Amino acid sequence: MQNPTAAMLVIGDEILSGRTRDANMYHLAGTLTGVGIDLTEVRVVSDKQSAIVAAVQALSAAYDYVFTSGGIGPTHDDITADCIAAAFGRTIDVREDARSLLAAHYAKSGSELNAARLRMARIPEGAALIENPVSVAPGFIVENVYVMAGVPSVFRAMVETVMPTLTGGAPLISETVRIDRGEGDIAAPLGALADKYPALSMGSYPFQKKNGAYGSNIVIRGTDHADIRRAVEELTAVLGL
Amino acid sequence: MQNPTAAMLVIGDEILSGRTRDANMYHLAGTLTGVGIDLTEVRVVSDKQSAIVAAVQALSAAYDYVFTSGGIGPTHDDITADCIAAAFGRTIDVREDARSLLAAHYAKSGSELNAARLRMARIPEGAALIENPVSVAPGFIVENVYVMAGVPSVFRAMVETVMPTLTGGAPLISETVRIDRGEGDIAAPLGALADKYPALSMGSYPFQKKNGAYGSNIVIRGTDHADIRRAVEELTAVLGL
Repeated sequence: MQNPTAAMLVIGDEILSGRTRDANMYHLAGTLTGVGIDLTEVRVVSDKQSAIVAAVQALSAAYDYVFTSGGIGPTHDDITADCIAAAFGRTIDVREDARSLLAAHYAKSGSELNAARLRMARIPEGAALIENPVSVAPGFIVENVYVMAGVPSVFRAMVETVMPTLTGGAPLISETVRIDRGEGDIAAPLGALADKYPALSMGSYPFQKKNGAYGSNIVIRGTDHADIRRAVEELTAVLGL
Repeated sequence: MQNPTAAMLVIGDEILSGRTRDANMYHLAGTLTGVGIDLTEVRVVSDKQSAIVAAVQALSAAYDYVFTSGGIGPTHDDITADCIAAAFGRTIDVREDARSLLAAHYAKSGSELNAARLRMARIPEGAALIENPVSVAPGFIVENVYVMAGVPSVFRAMVETVMPTLTGGAPLISETVRIDRGEGDIAAPLGALADKYPALSMGSYPFQKKNGAYGSNIVIRGTDHADIRRAVEELTAVLGL
């Protein structure tokens, strides 16, 4: 049985300009792997309507789940909600339940629910809200697209909110064998082993040590723990480790 | 005049599984911004031929430059060179100049130029080589696609090799104004300022401090330093900073 597939769409000029190093992709990738959902593609696009709409449509059609991060705050460059509505041909307006959440939150903190903050209650027609225990302004779900915030603490909280509602598969487990030899020395036996275990995925991730010497982490992944164990033992035996 | 556009394609299961946190995207984004090439899209795909070929074709058609990272080593999961050849309908074979580079390198280090290592001399027809001062095995260029290694030290060396050959634009400069208030309090004046300076891009990147308080970094970007200065002064004046 195939695991469900997922894509992530990171929305934001700050990643593309090199100002910010992405953290949400790394977090989501690890979380999905743990529950057996295969993150298969990630795209990073800028804060432009045409780019966001095209990416949402392409990813939503190709994968079981799509997770977006970024662009749902109160400032002029936060255009994700409108883009999601446009991508699915839905209307968008301030929604009463989202407005109430914000009103109660800002009343408590003594801040004004002004026009800018009210933009965060604009939700595409027919969406389900994603609870935000950190800063209240909700994310939302349209069809198979989960729209979440870009601020890492809020993104993580929203991921935690939605995870129990997703249908996972067999969690991917992996073992890593560190080899202090160049990849070229181990490529032939590794390739033979990969052919022998077609249900496992074997990746070789080379590194260079500070002294210039090369090595590689061989990662063997699959859903059957016994199979992985057997492959690791064969690999270490054939390499004389 | 429009700056040249670029896309990056990160090839590798290790990013999508959450095993490795990407470093090359962050490095390339900062480098391109410094020379006035607009990184407009990034995709991360797994080590699957169909996914790599489709992404290469789409990005090559849409942007001036495409930079790939990953999948050009000697192991069975290194399939990038074959995918690039397939994407452009070119043949691929061991090329003599690339073979000579590897032969000299491995002769010096006393390693064998075996079949696995020889795979790194397989270069699509008509490509130009990218010098690799770190570990010798070259990258290559086909049309507007620059194919580079995934190991960060090698990736960075190859980026350094190709940068002087690229046609840049006006370098993007930016100033950041840190504001210790919630985005909702500053969204209206910031939006008005963005409307007033259409040639500048103004992004608001919210953060949450350890004590729970919100703030935001306002980044004003453009190519005209005087314009940026003026906008920053107007923003700080209107916010009473």
